[in-house]
Amino acid sequence: MNDWLPPQYDGLVDLMERFALTAESFGYRRIETPAVENFEILKAKAGPDIINEIYYFKDKAGRELGLRFDMTVPVARVVSYRPDLPKPIRFYYTTKVWRYDEPQQGRYREFHQYGVELIGSSTTASDAEVLSLSIISLRNAGAVNVLAKVSDRRVIDYLLDKKGVPIQARAGVLRALDKRGKIEYEDIIKLLINEGISRETASELVNVAGTEVPISEAGSILKELGISSELVNYHESLLQLLDSYGVSQVVRLNLGIVRGLDYYTGFIFELFMGDFNLSVGGGGRYDNLIGIYSGQNVPATGFAIGIERVFLAMNTIQSPRIIDYYVYVTDQSLLDTAIKIANKLRLRGFRVAMDLGDKSLRAALDYASRLGSLKFIILGKREAQRGSIKVRDMELWQEEEIPISKILGN
Amino acid sequence: MNDWLPPQYDGLVDLMERFALTAESFGYRRIETPAVENFEILKAKAGPDIINEIYYFKDKAGRELGLRFDMTVPVARVVSYRPDLPKPIRFYYTTKVWRYDEPQQGRYREFHQYGVELIGSSTTASDAEVLSLSIISLRNAGAVNVLAKVSDRRVIDYLLDKKGVPIQARAGVLRALDKRGKIEYEDIIKLLINEGISRETASELVNVAGTEVPISEAGSILKELGISSELVNYHESLLQLLDSYGVSQVVRLNLGIVRGLDYYTGFIFELFMGDFNLSVGGGGRYDNLIGIYSGQNVPATGFAIGIERVFLAMNTIQSPRIIDYYVYVTDQSLLDTAIKIANKLRLRGFRVAMDLGDKSLRAALDYASRLGSLKFIILGKREAQRGSIKVRDMELWQEEEIPISKILGN
Repeated sequence: MNDWLPPQYDGLVDLMERFALTAESFGYRRIETPAVENFEILKAKAGPDIINEIYYFKDKAGRELGLRFDMTVPVARVVSYRPDLPKPIRFYYTTKVWRYDEPQQGRYREFHQYGVELIGSSTTASDAEVLSLSIISLRNAGAVNVLAKVSDRRVIDYLLDKKGVPIQARAGVLRALDKRGKIEYEDIIKLLINEGISRETASELVNVAGTEVPISEAGSILKELGISSELVNYHESLLQLLDSYGVSQVVRLNLGIVRGLDYYTGFIFELFMGDFNLSVGGGGRYDNLIGIYSGQNVPATGFAIGIERVFLAMNTIQSPRIIDYYVYVTDQSLLDTAIKIANKLRLRGFRVAMDLGDKSLRAALDYASRLGSLKFIILGKREAQRGSIKVRDMELWQEEEIPISKILGN
Repeated sequence: MNDWLPPQYDGLVDLMERFALTAESFGYRRIETPAVENFEILKAKAGPDIINEIYYFKDKAGRELGLRFDMTVPVARVVSYRPDLPKPIRFYYTTKVWRYDEPQQGRYREFHQYGVELIGSSTTASDAEVLSLSIISLRNAGAVNVLAKVSDRRVIDYLLDKKGVPIQARAGVLRALDKRGKIEYEDIIKLLINEGISRETASELVNVAGTEVPISEAGSILKELGISSELVNYHESLLQLLDSYGVSQVVRLNLGIVRGLDYYTGFIFELFMGDFNLSVGGGGRYDNLIGIYSGQNVPATGFAIGIERVFLAMNTIQSPRIIDYYVYVTDQSLLDTAIKIANKLRLRGFRVAMDLGDKSLRAALDYASRLGSLKFIILGKREAQRGSIKVRDMELWQEEEIPISKILGN
């Protein structure tokens, strides 16, 4: 796990604030849930890979608890308790989640996620909104070369049906296909054969999973595969809406995208940016998750973005949070005036650090410079007698004398 | 533990943002550490009451871990690893901590804290800055009747020395005195007697702990008690600086304030506001904590404020996060234009929620009104033929027709 210090943390916070602004511009409202959930709730739809990654423990009352591994599950729990909330519900979050897995690039065991959940609508418009919002969020945060790869659990299910893959092998097959690009081709084939698939079907599946085309060609590809016209129509409407949102150019159909989580039921997608080779996020439709907790299925769609990964992929984040003024007195008798000057400047919106009286002028100048201070105010006895202070520009290394009354006003 | 939904969470986030702004105006920088710490680190200076409240668990590698119960301990750990950071270090945080105790008013087992740590200076100026910043933070957040009660571990130690209370009984005596106002007088006396104190000394201690005077009288009270002139001088300088900060009027000396945490070594204080009878925060000087981790003592002072408590004590928080526009189409063929209108308005900084095509006009109006939408845009076929849309003011219940070009521009 990672400590976040300035200036890196300023950059992370800026990213979170930009994400929040974009989500709010789409009418989403911020939500937060406890870090700790009942283990039963967490494991209900996690899938075996994720269950192994849950930080599990018992409290003093013997309750089985765990740290949340995502926000979709807690939000589904909240919504299942609150049937009174007017639907559709638009929630977003920028918060922490925990997974006990091997740390990899841009992934710690504790990390931050930004995400949205759009709950209570099964329309194509809601899928289009969520996918577009994920892309626009990344763009507004300053990401370049944003790319979304879309697939569909229903298409994959149709193909597995056609190949006669039994229901109980499905989850294993998806997990094997999810390893494309991460492990060797032959190892994926072996994993599929272990699930009871013939070598021929296995290589056909891996082949279809290799399909990647612009989303504008999704309709014809899906027709070729013999998918139902309903599903083809869905993807054609989706394309049209993504066009309206101005994002269709950066969306591709990729039937190799399966997502690790077991709760997805419809369209799914992963997000890429810059020249970063791992996905920075993803999402999709999960129509059965809320029903696990409430007994009544509620359609829902959403995404989550790994904030550390975006941070790493941008790698040029500059922090605007520098000190505007550093205030120094050469004599403690001037401290009262110095504090009043600092307070006035703060009220005007400046960031002002006071010297604490234990540094020489030379040491204070050096320290203020290391903090990135823009200006250095010196209250000296001689200037004070003239009713003025010295203000040094730390960049230009120039000094001017200005009247105290100019700052303290009347 | 508590789920945070809108609009309550908006209010909590607003509070955190106001606190952050005030801390930054004093030159503090934001920091964050993992929720999970090594149990050894957490328990080093927690004191027995707090140790019992730590959420403790083991990870799969058998490491003993715990959820942090405050941020002072993790920040001390961070600073002990980073002797390269220029001092004084000014850090602040607005984040979550966890304590497994009985939930009480404004206190859940998971709660948010805002706090600052000023590390590397032992001057009176740093204590004055921290105490003033805590009061100004509460005021800037909109709190009224802010009050700080100050005491001093060194004064209490001096009195216990004078009474011949043995070192090993000190922590127990402090914990007993900390219960003033929470349990009966006679029960405190019993707790003190259990620590080996005579009934006479016990009642004298409880009596001194009942002292509360304006901070301007601190010097004379401390002289009366026979405290060292060094300590009297410290409190007189502190008063002067609090005067400069404009907060001395709301600071009182209260020798009953002892603080539950074992790491304090100098001045300590608790914060109150409004007519809320529990303290909303507190802090003080802890010169030995960082040394536990680094082997080298570094002077430090800081405070923490319970954000939920402030939220509860204010109880009039209004959320500014409402929807500016709700966009509705009477015919799906107009969806493309609707999305473009929504996107334009978002770029101009408005919060815009799109209808998802599964509601009647009547249901959409009702839903938009429940969301708190200010305006409702209707794209109808007839108006579209004229190149215009209808915009309904949801408050005045008035409608006007405006040209689409006015929004979409050229």
